[in-house]
Amino acid sequence: MAEIGPNTRLRTSPFYDATVAAGVTAFSPYNRMLMPVSYGDPAAEYDRLLNGVAQWDVGIQRQVQIKGPDAARLAQILSVRDLSKCAVNQGKYVPMCDHRGVLINDPVVLKLADDLFWLSIADNNILMWTRSIAAERGLDAEITEPDVSPMAVQGPRAEDVVASIFGDWVRGLKYFWFSDAEIDGIPLRIARSGFSKQGGFELYLMDRRRGSDLWNTVREAGQPWGIGPGNPNPAERIESGLLSYGGDTDDQTNPFEVRLGKYVDLDLEDEVVGIAALRNIRAWGLKRHQLGIVLDDETPQPGHAAWYEVTARGRTIGTMTNGCWSPRIGRVIGFVLISRAFGPGDTVEVVRNGVATEGQLCDLPFL
Amino acid sequence: MAEIGPNTRLRTSPFYDATVAAGVTAFSPYNRMLMPVSYGDPAAEYDRLLNGVAQWDVGIQRQVQIKGPDAARLAQILSVRDLSKCAVNQGKYVPMCDHRGVLINDPVVLKLADDLFWLSIADNNILMWTRSIAAERGLDAEITEPDVSPMAVQGPRAEDVVASIFGDWVRGLKYFWFSDAEIDGIPLRIARSGFSKQGGFELYLMDRRRGSDLWNTVREAGQPWGIGPGNPNPAERIESGLLSYGGDTDDQTNPFEVRLGKYVDLDLEDEVVGIAALRNIRAWGLKRHQLGIVLDDETPQPGHAAWYEVTARGRTIGTMTNGCWSPRIGRVIGFVLISRAFGPGDTVEVVRNGVATEGQLCDLPFL
Repeated sequence: MAEIGPNTRLRTSPFYDATVAAGVTAFSPYNRMLMPVSYGDPAAEYDRLLNGVAQWDVGIQRQVQIKGPDAARLAQILSVRDLSKCAVNQGKYVPMCDHRGVLINDPVVLKLADDLFWLSIADNNILMWTRSIAAERGLDAEITEPDVSPMAVQGPRAEDVVASIFGDWVRGLKYFWFSDAEIDGIPLRIARSGFSKQGGFELYLMDRRRGSDLWNTVREAGQPWGIGPGNPNPAERIESGLLSYGGDTDDQTNPFEVRLGKYVDLDLEDEVVGIAALRNIRAWGLKRHQLGIVLDDETPQPGHAAWYEVTARGRTIGTMTNGCWSPRIGRVIGFVLISRAFGPGDTVEVVRNGVATEGQLCDLPFL
Repeated sequence: MAEIGPNTRLRTSPFYDATVAAGVTAFSPYNRMLMPVSYGDPAAEYDRLLNGVAQWDVGIQRQVQIKGPDAARLAQILSVRDLSKCAVNQGKYVPMCDHRGVLINDPVVLKLADDLFWLSIADNNILMWTRSIAAERGLDAEITEPDVSPMAVQGPRAEDVVASIFGDWVRGLKYFWFSDAEIDGIPLRIARSGFSKQGGFELYLMDRRRGSDLWNTVREAGQPWGIGPGNPNPAERIESGLLSYGGDTDDQTNPFEVRLGKYVDLDLEDEVVGIAALRNIRAWGLKRHQLGIVLDDETPQPGHAAWYEVTARGRTIGTMTNGCWSPRIGRVIGFVLISRAFGPGDTVEVVRNGVATEGQLCDLPFL
């Protein structure tokens, strides 16, 4: 393995020093920042997430702030999901598409006020994209990247930890809703959200000088429940059927192909970027769909370095986008993006480094 | 140092296997790909570039291809430099700005035909940007990322190496001009260009399956001149005054601030993105400018992990964006982006990890 460290094109998160102290061993870039991806003990990290509580540096989940008279209209223009019923202090998971109807992000959109929104984004330059659309449409909105960096607290004991710090009111937060909070003078917002299906919260730190303070506060509070460091977990997120934008999608992927159709409202106004294209895609029918696959392989192994070819009867039918060994299933599982001629129950082959392995297609999520 | 390796959101270049075989020791991400940044012997890598010849994997320099009836108009709309006199087979170094006049890239624009252009880009999602502007303006152009990956051959003996493979005609190529070529069935384009001031070529590989073949062909041909692996060299590029987009620029930087004013044509049509904002910026005057700095520090050291504060008489006047020890000057040198109240000859202080070091401002380039 080769080395990586921060440089002037690759920023650190406010939690960087704390993650180094916690023993981070590997990074991957995300939104031009260093994202921790391992602390050297995958089994313990998985176990904490499934059975206890973990704290994750997800400061790489940047916010695009939209503020001003046209903020609500612009947020809707960028979103193929209807935001008209989104309340203040509510968030919504939203597919964003380009004019072709191709997915360019899947942020959580947080409505802070009628004229103030955050797009809490996956890995792409949505700040530039938002400015581009606003300027081309002549909309009156100020678009910035505020000093906001989330830390996730995830796992079945996350609620106990977060409640022990901020109070029992956090137990009443509904999924994707958020509220202002403060601890030791650290300004933040608390949302019930996170990139796992084990439950938990994201603490949106709003003063990057206080990253280590917030990390250590959560670490100390979490001791009774055995808290430890972690990161978005490849095995758990695949078992849970969570999409990785950019990892499971390519330059042609539309939301319907990757199970996001339920978040697309085709009757939105034509001014919404991509909505006209999505109507056409829906009308003409899809070529590909995303399914799960269980490989005939029980060998624990790390994630993919690249997409693998999927074949059936000697012909290429698509790709296996990501996969890993599943501790709960005891097999290598993953996502495929393949021809709609194949469906759950079918047997196909995945070609990994020149070697074909059989696997069975299935619906998602796995668990 | 932590580890990094390829994953499904972080692609490898066609030269990846060859760079691993050549002993690459560190990567940094660039355009969501792995860019080699060290082979473990900085002194030898610098020496080869200055006195011999080096081969670099710069496959991360992606191409945005614009093709169709409106291709030329779209290329100009994205460029604040006049492209009307650019000939087929000619390239031009071009600042690209957003609607605020802020730099979002500094590609080489290659004109392949009257209706076909490549933007050979620095680190940003210009593919998405280009599609956005084209769609919003209703322009008729197909915008894609073609299978094209440059390898640079740089240094005073680069011409001998490239001529030994492709013929003496390459010696006649003018700066930024390019030509089709082929070797052993490998399709490519050869341009006289590269991110150094030591002279050389970029070989635009047009079949990613042939990356190792092209790398090995160049390596073999370069043996008489002592060729070896390298990458864009921090010391040489700073000595030479070459800008690193995203490393020396921030979310407010306009081309005038960073010495690119000579590539801005303010009398372009208003439809050019950013040109109206740049006219205002020019009229109102600049707040910052980029200069060189020579620090009172003779200690060899690696590049910056982040920007440093620059102070004068106890007040912050800007930042030192990048710096490193210069083998030819024997001091730590770098770029500052500071208030225009300070100029060449002034003494200022740079605060590195809490310690202030004096330095003298100077014009760029250093050498």
